[in-house]
Amino acid sequence: MNKHNKPIRSGMGRSTPDRIFVQGRDLVKDVIGTLNLGDMAYLEMTGRLPDAHQSRVFNAILVTLVEHGMTPMAIATRLVYLGAPESLQAAVAAGLCGMGTTFAGTAEGAARMLHEAWEQHNGADADSLARDIVADFRAKGRSIPGVGHNLHKPQDPRTARLFEVAAQEGHAGRYVELMQAIGRHAQAAYDKPLPVNATGAIGALCCELGISWKAARGIAVIGRAVGLVGHLVEEQGNPIAREIWLRTEEEASRQDQTPADAGR
Amino acid sequence: MNKHNKPIRSGMGRSTPDRIFVQGRDLVKDVIGTLNLGDMAYLEMTGRLPDAHQSRVFNAILVTLVEHGMTPMAIATRLVYLGAPESLQAAVAAGLCGMGTTFAGTAEGAARMLHEAWEQHNGADADSLARDIVADFRAKGRSIPGVGHNLHKPQDPRTARLFEVAAQEGHAGRYVELMQAIGRHAQAAYDKPLPVNATGAIGALCCELGISWKAARGIAVIGRAVGLVGHLVEEQGNPIAREIWLRTEEEASRQDQTPADAGR
Amino acid sequence: MNKHNKPIRSGMGRSTPDRIFVQGRDLVKDVIGTLNLGDMAYLEMTGRLPDAHQSRVFNAILVTLVEHGMTPMAIATRLVYLGAPESLQAAVAAGLCGMGTTFAGTAEGAARMLHEAWEQHNGADADSLARDIVADFRAKGRSIPGVGHNLHKPQDPRTARLFEVAAQEGHAGRYVELMQAIGRHAQAAYDKPLPVNATGAIGALCCELGISWKAARGIAVIGRAVGLVGHLVEEQGNPIAREIWLRTEEEASRQDQTPADAGR
Amino acid sequence: MNKHNKPIRSGMGRSTPDRIFVQGRDLVKDVIGTLNLGDMAYLEMTGRLPDAHQSRVFNAILVTLVEHGMTPMAIATRLVYLGAPESLQAAVAAGLCGMGTTFAGTAEGAARMLHEAWEQHNGADADSLARDIVADFRAKGRSIPGVGHNLHKPQDPRTARLFEVAAQEGHAGRYVELMQAIGRHAQAAYDKPLPVNATGAIGALCCELGISWKAARGIAVIGRAVGLVGHLVEEQGNPIAREIWLRTEEEASRQDQTPADAGR
Repeated sequence: MNKHNKPIRSGMGRSTPDRIFVQGRDLVKDVIGTLNLGDMAYLEMTGRLPDAHQSRVFNAILVTLVEHGMTPMAIATRLVYLGAPESLQAAVAAGLCGMGTTFAGTAEGAARMLHEAWEQHNGADADSLARDIVADFRAKGRSIPGVGHNLHKPQDPRTARLFEVAAQEGHAGRYVELMQAIGRHAQAAYDKPLPVNATGAIGALCCELGISWKAARGIAVIGRAVGLVGHLVEEQGNPIAREIWLRTEEEASRQDQTPADAGR
Repeated sequence: MNKHNKPIRSGMGRSTPDRIFVQGRDLVKDVIGTLNLGDMAYLEMTGRLPDAHQSRVFNAILVTLVEHGMTPMAIATRLVYLGAPESLQAAVAAGLCGMGTTFAGTAEGAARMLHEAWEQHNGADADSLARDIVADFRAKGRSIPGVGHNLHKPQDPRTARLFEVAAQEGHAGRYVELMQAIGRHAQAAYDKPLPVNATGAIGALCCELGISWKAARGIAVIGRAVGLVGHLVEEQGNPIAREIWLRTEEEASRQDQTPADAGR
Repeated sequence: MNKHNKPIRSGMGRSTPDRIFVQGRDLVKDVIGTLNLGDMAYLEMTGRLPDAHQSRVFNAILVTLVEHGMTPMAIATRLVYLGAPESLQAAVAAGLCGMGTTFAGTAEGAARMLHEAWEQHNGADADSLARDIVADFRAKGRSIPGVGHNLHKPQDPRTARLFEVAAQEGHAGRYVELMQAIGRHAQAAYDKPLPVNATGAIGALCCELGISWKAARGIAVIGRAVGLVGHLVEEQGNPIAREIWLRTEEEASRQDQTPADAGR
Repeated sequence: MNKHNKPIRSGMGRSTPDRIFVQGRDLVKDVIGTLNLGDMAYLEMTGRLPDAHQSRVFNAILVTLVEHGMTPMAIATRLVYLGAPESLQAAVAAGLCGMGTTFAGTAEGAARMLHEAWEQHNGADADSLARDIVADFRAKGRSIPGVGHNLHKPQDPRTARLFEVAAQEGHAGRYVELMQAIGRHAQAAYDKPLPVNATGAIGALCCELGISWKAARGIAVIGRAVGLVGHLVEEQGNPIAREIWLRTEEEASRQDQTPADAGR
């Protein structure tokens, strides 16, 4: 007899011989031929179908996250595919493993910052919340999520476009306002260009759509999975992983090397 | 001096301070707010923007692949998230690692079978190609990719819908015809229900869209990444991984167990 | 011309047609037939060969970390193998992805705590350092790494044995002393059994051997990789993943389920 | 009520408050301080403790597999660590994902070839079995697992040493004999240096130790996990991943690039 008897329940999907349900919707009647992939992601993550406005904003977020050129994750994916071409899925998985704090955590951080600020605002307006947030991060010596970019300055071109799309669809509310105010106050406090970057914009739009900050990293994972598959299709036609490997191996193993040189 | 000097080239993406290019398109002007995620995946995988017909067919393929309920991969993703909740991306990666031959290889196999058959057809029509293919697989004792399903019989409801969408968009050509013929001949040869299943339909539609069979598994990976993120969002609100673990651990470690019982 | 020209150097290994060097040692003459796998791990992680004392302590740490029965990671590895039996390596990788903060971060945390305490001790002895550490964690409401266990109480049997082996080999110094003092003070402060657990003992012994706390998680990864391969060998002879999957799927998809029930 | 009621059993490990059993052995009394990591791997994979001879041969196999310098997998592991330094375990997992057919499948293939040959030998001796095997692979145009090396020729220095250790320990039997005969016949048939390489030697020694060819890849995974952790420890002290990334990104995104150039 089992001591453990918490029921195991899920509403993700179930099948009968002639029907398939996903999130309680009929896959054949309501999904295939009707939803695009971004809408399907919205359904999976929220349990609701997006309306046309939510669909455009959510798809805008997702497509922004797909492709960032030859990132460390894209290179890792190509190298792993070189070793295991029979397991394309494992090569994508390897690249996804690199979506940690260095490159991918900031949309999550921005969404959390914005969400918590409005949850505890006590009547404060966006401008004063932003001033407090910037002062707080500054006092702790921590960088503010969602502002600043080493290449895109003085403005990140994606941010203006994402906020424009959100405004067109009626989803540029108080989270967008707060994120923009944080950018202004950060710029003033540090006296250097600290534009709201794409992850700041995406964090704000996730909040506008009611998506939990805990799920924000999942949106980045979905976008990047698409991009890494794209890199593998390019790698199939124009392989570069072998060249990266051979150059690196040759340089790293030059005979003037000793373990001591390697800094340990 | 480097011995290795093959140039490293890629057309996936590049950035300047005020512009970002993806597949040669301007991300801000041409992509954000314009493309849905399925269209973006098509752009990444083919280098081309889909027209409205291709977009509907390709998105239909993708959404079919997202959610299959509580698969081994979904359970594995939830268990890994229990161990490393700070690394949502690694939990998705863990589940993707399971998309191998058992569950996910068949769309690839079907696409390859159809592609190669029409490449080498020598004037044969779909019906005679199908008869030869079925006879060939049968003689070798191998199962035919894309036909048969343990639950969905006598018909897989997704297949009819996918072929209907393709026909509506003008993409139900000779690959669809051949896949259907293979289903008919398989059914006759084995004298049991062997409907074209969803992976057979998807393999055929990939060929219709001109997507290489080598990339077909990538489409499945994209769809499944969306689904696994969905499972983690449900797990955040309604955790079940701990219960699965504790029940399994308890049963597996009952004291009447000895290593010998475990079959080794 | 490259802007990026930091040299790429490594002392891990290199080969000529008739010789292979690992960490500057001749693989054939100095390693194969001479070192055991634990010694090799020590060489890889420190660049030095262990003496007999270090070898016994380091191998004791490693073997303690190999097998913990049917953990979430072991179950995930088996489920992924069910999906991709052709990629045993990806199944092990999937399980390793789950070695995050929930189960595996504490040896790292204990090693760091002990290392930093002695680095900044200012003449304090182990007992007063321990008292301050316990008070500090208590004040912050954070749990102390390396003490307490939900099953093994009042003592974790592994701890006494690990400390005994270390003492026999002359490696039970001030880090062991401090860890033991932390256990005593924790027990007094919280008035409940908080024995030094295996990860606390391992954290202390890593410090005794001069291994950086940043590398401590790597030792756990090595141990667990061995254990997960063991689980797959058992799974090959006595498969259980399919049963875990089918039971979970059946219970999760019962028809009295609706998405609303699933708590979202 | 469950339809699925196959019992879930395992002999890997179980715990009581004061004892821990691994493979039926008492971890504290029989393992910690007694076994080295290679012996523990043997216990996990076979359910038996190795004698001194088996221990030396098995550890020799394992240490040979640890370090191969700057492989694609090692580079991928370093790049993923750059992106997610908080998840060392996921970086190791990413590298392991690359241990597929290109680099790691051959020990498995050699072990299988040798195992099946002696299982079906019908009284033939090693020399005639080897002649038939070489002829068979040649007729099918497939490469013979375990022979040939692009750098180590005319001999792979690891092979002689592994066979020497095996002979010293009384484990150089008919599988070693057959592998050596295959090397001789391959060299004669192709009229070029085709020495038995390290994976051929390892495949033969796995058979000598009674380890299933299905588990041979697991041994490679264990060895490589140790090596990848070593690479991350070096990366912590002497980071090179960022340089590899920046050089690759710069070269790949030069402005004379167009998607067309990228070969698609």
